[in-house]
Amino acid sequence: MEKKITIYDLAKELNVSPGTISRSLNNHPSISQKTKDRVVFKANEMGYKVNKFAVNLRTQKSNAIGVIVPKLNSNFMSTLLAGVEKVVNEAGYNLIISQSLESVEKEIMNAKTLYNSGVDALLVSLAFNSESSEHFMPYIKSKIPLIFMDRVFNLPNCPTIVIDNFQAGYDATNHLIQQGCKNILIVTGNLKRNVYSNRLLGYKGALEDNNIVFNEVNIIETSMEPQSAKDVVDYIKSMNVPIDGLFVLSDSFAAHCMQKLKTEGFSIPNDIKVIGFNNDPISELVSPTLSTIEYPGYSMGLLAGESIINQIKGNINLQETNSISLRHKLIVRESSKK
Amino acid sequence: MEKKITIYDLAKELNVSPGTISRSLNNHPSISQKTKDRVVFKANEMGYKVNKFAVNLRTQKSNAIGVIVPKLNSNFMSTLLAGVEKVVNEAGYNLIISQSLESVEKEIMNAKTLYNSGVDALLVSLAFNSESSEHFMPYIKSKIPLIFMDRVFNLPNCPTIVIDNFQAGYDATNHLIQQGCKNILIVTGNLKRNVYSNRLLGYKGALEDNNIVFNEVNIIETSMEPQSAKDVVDYIKSMNVPIDGLFVLSDSFAAHCMQKLKTEGFSIPNDIKVIGFNNDPISELVSPTLSTIEYPGYSMGLLAGESIINQIKGNINLQETNSISLRHKLIVRESSKK
Repeated sequence: MEKKITIYDLAKELNVSPGTISRSLNNHPSISQKTKDRVVFKANEMGYKVNKFAVNLRTQKSNAIGVIVPKLNSNFMSTLLAGVEKVVNEAGYNLIISQSLESVEKEIMNAKTLYNSGVDALLVSLAFNSESSEHFMPYIKSKIPLIFMDRVFNLPNCPTIVIDNFQAGYDATNHLIQQGCKNILIVTGNLKRNVYSNRLLGYKGALEDNNIVFNEVNIIETSMEPQSAKDVVDYIKSMNVPIDGLFVLSDSFAAHCMQKLKTEGFSIPNDIKVIGFNNDPISELVSPTLSTIEYPGYSMGLLAGESIINQIKGNINLQETNSISLRHKLIVRESSKK
Repeated sequence: MEKKITIYDLAKELNVSPGTISRSLNNHPSISQKTKDRVVFKANEMGYKVNKFAVNLRTQKSNAIGVIVPKLNSNFMSTLLAGVEKVVNEAGYNLIISQSLESVEKEIMNAKTLYNSGVDALLVSLAFNSESSEHFMPYIKSKIPLIFMDRVFNLPNCPTIVIDNFQAGYDATNHLIQQGCKNILIVTGNLKRNVYSNRLLGYKGALEDNNIVFNEVNIIETSMEPQSAKDVVDYIKSMNVPIDGLFVLSDSFAAHCMQKLKTEGFSIPNDIKVIGFNNDPISELVSPTLSTIEYPGYSMGLLAGESIINQIKGNINLQETNSISLRHKLIVRESSKK
């Protein structure tokens, strides 16, 4: 490895004092812009590197924010992270992103690794099968800001950023009922997660308000992976009372179900009306275009980023605003037309 | 802020020596498993935190790998990052992810911030308008491993991980010609980027090998944002010789163009045959289903992760394998049927 460049090397090269180098690199007002420019140019040219670790040791700040999400390659999650990254990057923080890959074991390991990395804060969206909050306790004990987004635990002093999943589920179901559906199947992911269980409650609420009796057989819980679309269509074909409405809690899985239904001879929206969730780009591009609930991923990301920065800096006390709920929107397209 | 928990606090609490605490936390063989378990349990309970910065100062390793990508919320990029994260996480490294948002100014700023954060390596996929490699020089001078993925610069000692974009462009164009197309429009992003310019060269090569004269009017350069689909369709309608083939260098933009073409009365594949690029999930879900080039984003991510870990650990010398090219695959679906 090459010898590490120090401020003394820079001072010698530029024929100024080490103090001038140090003040220039710290943008001190006592140094002229011309000198600063010369120093910064030479520092870059020679490959000078700030000893950030020494700075960290002094300030006990890592300037890093940890993130744990189920997986990076989902449209909603990558959109949300794009929002978070924009805000924290502009505030001078680095974002350390890790995936649980829907496994609680990996979530526990990531929480531990990020804790030991000395992150200043943690943003979490939970894995499918995460049930205990034990692995977040070290953050709470050390008073490191911890915010849950979308898939959340409700822990004391840990703000959550969510949408009103109950109301969103209600609105989607109510829309199908208004379009004439009387026997609606809801297709959901793991009901341990708040996002899905609350949308299911909304579904039940809308049925009740429209005097439709809820039937347990009208819930199907799946992995929402493309290959499960066949199971959903087989289930629909096996039902005694024909389904006339389908509420799928993910646009991308709804698109797969529609495709499978079409190849099995179902006409959408004539035989079955369909509504998805998320307003993924895909929902505008399938035929028929897919009705859905718009879910503000990017805004959620911006807000999560702003909240965490404010909390680190002590500008606001998020404990007082323990849950931030963002507005969703019903988007009606061809798949649920009368 | 609460008082920081030290190994002395733990020692007092458990009534053992500080040395025992330290050895337990470092999993030293001289300590019994029972004691280790007690110490780790208590350390978690009390919110003890390893002073990683002190460790960093000693080892000059951050155990962090920086990443700069154009944007997180594209299917290809998030899939690629999912692969990178999986490998580096398993190797005990953190991934610091930043976005250039297709702006060279932000790319320069991110390169500087990550450099000053002391990352052990950097992975980059370039912004649309990045032309100078000046901002990567500090890494090269300091011998910090630097790998370019997909959108690359060819710099000495900086490996690149790409697909053979020339051959992929050739294969897509040749397929359309085999299906009977004689007047093929290519729809591309910014031609400053290697990925697009090389695919264009492949397009020209395939025309030449099939004795079709290349015509400059058959190239249209766009932002490939959804709203530009209208411009492409207007352009197609304005052409003197009708287009019978369309090669769009992104599936998602191809889907938008197809949708617009259909509403303008074009029949696909009868009037115009279409092929995209990437094999995005969307390509299977649109009607007609979209022919495309499969582009191994996840594999590219795994490989980039492995390469950078090996390079950090000195296991291999990537300088000797300066460019890794992954295999692409032509996928024929309905949109290019005869």
